[in-house]
Amino acid sequence: MSGLPPTVAWSDDGRAVRIVDQRRLPAELAFLDLRTVDEVVNAIRTLAVRGAPAIGVAGAMGLAVALREREAGFAAHFEAAATAIARARPTAVNLPWAIARMRAAVASRLGEPASALRLLHDEAERIRAEDEAMCLAIGTHGLALLRDGMTLLTHCNAGALATAGIGTALAPVHLAARRGWRLHVYADETRPLLQGARLTMWELLHAGVQATLITDNMAAATLRDRGIEAVLVGADRICANGDVVNKVGTYGVALAAHAHGVPVYVLAPSSTVDPATARGADVHIEQRDGAEVTMPLGAAAAPAGAQAYNPAFDWTPARLVSAIVTDRGVHRPPYDFSRGVVATSST
Amino acid sequence: MSGLPPTVAWSDDGRAVRIVDQRRLPAELAFLDLRTVDEVVNAIRTLAVRGAPAIGVAGAMGLAVALREREAGFAAHFEAAATAIARARPTAVNLPWAIARMRAAVASRLGEPASALRLLHDEAERIRAEDEAMCLAIGTHGLALLRDGMTLLTHCNAGALATAGIGTALAPVHLAARRGWRLHVYADETRPLLQGARLTMWELLHAGVQATLITDNMAAATLRDRGIEAVLVGADRICANGDVVNKVGTYGVALAAHAHGVPVYVLAPSSTVDPATARGADVHIEQRDGAEVTMPLGAAAAPAGAQAYNPAFDWTPARLVSAIVTDRGVHRPPYDFSRGVVATSST
Repeated sequence: MSGLPPTVAWSDDGRAVRIVDQRRLPAELAFLDLRTVDEVVNAIRTLAVRGAPAIGVAGAMGLAVALREREAGFAAHFEAAATAIARARPTAVNLPWAIARMRAAVASRLGEPASALRLLHDEAERIRAEDEAMCLAIGTHGLALLRDGMTLLTHCNAGALATAGIGTALAPVHLAARRGWRLHVYADETRPLLQGARLTMWELLHAGVQATLITDNMAAATLRDRGIEAVLVGADRICANGDVVNKVGTYGVALAAHAHGVPVYVLAPSSTVDPATARGADVHIEQRDGAEVTMPLGAAAAPAGAQAYNPAFDWTPARLVSAIVTDRGVHRPPYDFSRGVVATSST
Repeated sequence: MSGLPPTVAWSDDGRAVRIVDQRRLPAELAFLDLRTVDEVVNAIRTLAVRGAPAIGVAGAMGLAVALREREAGFAAHFEAAATAIARARPTAVNLPWAIARMRAAVASRLGEPASALRLLHDEAERIRAEDEAMCLAIGTHGLALLRDGMTLLTHCNAGALATAGIGTALAPVHLAARRGWRLHVYADETRPLLQGARLTMWELLHAGVQATLITDNMAAATLRDRGIEAVLVGADRICANGDVVNKVGTYGVALAAHAHGVPVYVLAPSSTVDPATARGADVHIEQRDGAEVTMPLGAAAAPAGAQAYNPAFDWTPARLVSAIVTDRGVHRPPYDFSRGVVATSST
């Protein structure tokens, strides 16, 4: 990834978590060093770090650094910090999951601060490294579906900026770029929060990948008229039957891709697969504040008093998904994740 | 249309063209009285008045009022004014068409200013009244496709604000509202220029129609999950085979509607039908400045240097269009407009 710094990393002296401050993208690339619980919670809450995997990693690493020099009353400090960080964004599953791993790692050593700190650091580093490895595995499996010179389309940001590695949907794009492949990626801007315009475009430009921004409503005509050969998207949840819950707009893109015979590839960690949810229609879709719709980038577009509908996600039926790529391999239809993810041979 | 003023009208004293200043919508309803050629040209150029039918009407009426008290050298004044107004937005077909009608109306009377002024006023009023009647005819034919209590979806603004009457796609909605029908219209915001958020939402709220704004990428899930029973859109050009060129995003909405068995109705003046264009793929699609995509409402969303693709229109194949409604009636597939529009019995 020429020019693309890690989204979450240890600072040079190892005493802070250094994150890319995504609130300042795409205007400028700025870093934020997090040293205290308040700084960690604030960074997560204000979306300085976002993307479920990245939040989990930042929370775990933040917990490890924030407890330095807290030897007196260590167990109480740990409890307060772990609780505060786990609650920074209650809807992100990865965050409480990562903090639970941190709790388990030091459960028996809370009376020995020096030893506990070492264990916390090691567990946070494992979580970070696993995320990085997970991205690499997704990218490696996904790369087998692509070839040099392809034109692709993506939605939202399931990239390096959402993980501690090279991303999920964009992982094979980053690997391809490292190999010198010339890809061209059309990026949906992804209203209402414009993650495609703000983050995916920034990430691809900094990785040296040719990228072209479109508004979401141009996706159908772009799929037909601009030679798109594959759609790459991430997932927030994958149901037992292969239905995919992802950022709102994914469904419309999948319908249009299907109409033109363009394969839709969903790339996500195997932890995204939820065997307990039978199908997409069973998933409760989070409704967000209508102001995100009526006020793009904070400026009023609609008249005062205008009502808006603002589902954060939609679900795409498995029949529109050509392959699901996880760190365990490339999964092809008919999908059956009712007993979890079974590793596959690639392609 | 409770509360909805005419988009283009004569002022009370008949000496000016009074338009709704659409640059100030949706923040406030303000009117602009146009009395001179410069004022007319400026209003058209700066989008104070927009929508092909409304521009044609405003141009013709503007030409009639701007020549008052210009008796000395009338023919030269007329020539200069007609040329300037016809060129105010060269890509809008209705504008040169309306000015050509005005030319024909006074061609033999340019030496008699008083008589010419009367003829110009009468021809402009005919153009205005024909537009109003055209909208009413479209609305009446379209109303036969709807029923009380329906939930609809529309894209862009093909409403009263785009015509001198009650609009095209929204004409049956306005007629239904006058009858006391309770409709619920979901409006796509319609990036990049947000005509749905700014204009359709304003127009529907002022007409007392229940309206809900969505981002364009929510259309597919909304069509599936929110009980949409019909899609109403306008058209910029209708090809001989029934393919429809309209605001970008129409194609994706039509694909999603088709996938869910929701009828797609295209409502437009019969003058929109172009027998000389065989099919949608033959139409040259206007590409606009990428800054409209990278800078929503003028604020930077994408990183500096980001490339954007910005087609103003897309085309929807006739097979996705359930009916085409013109002032001549409801036209059903298979479409054949190769010899123009033949009047139909309604429904």
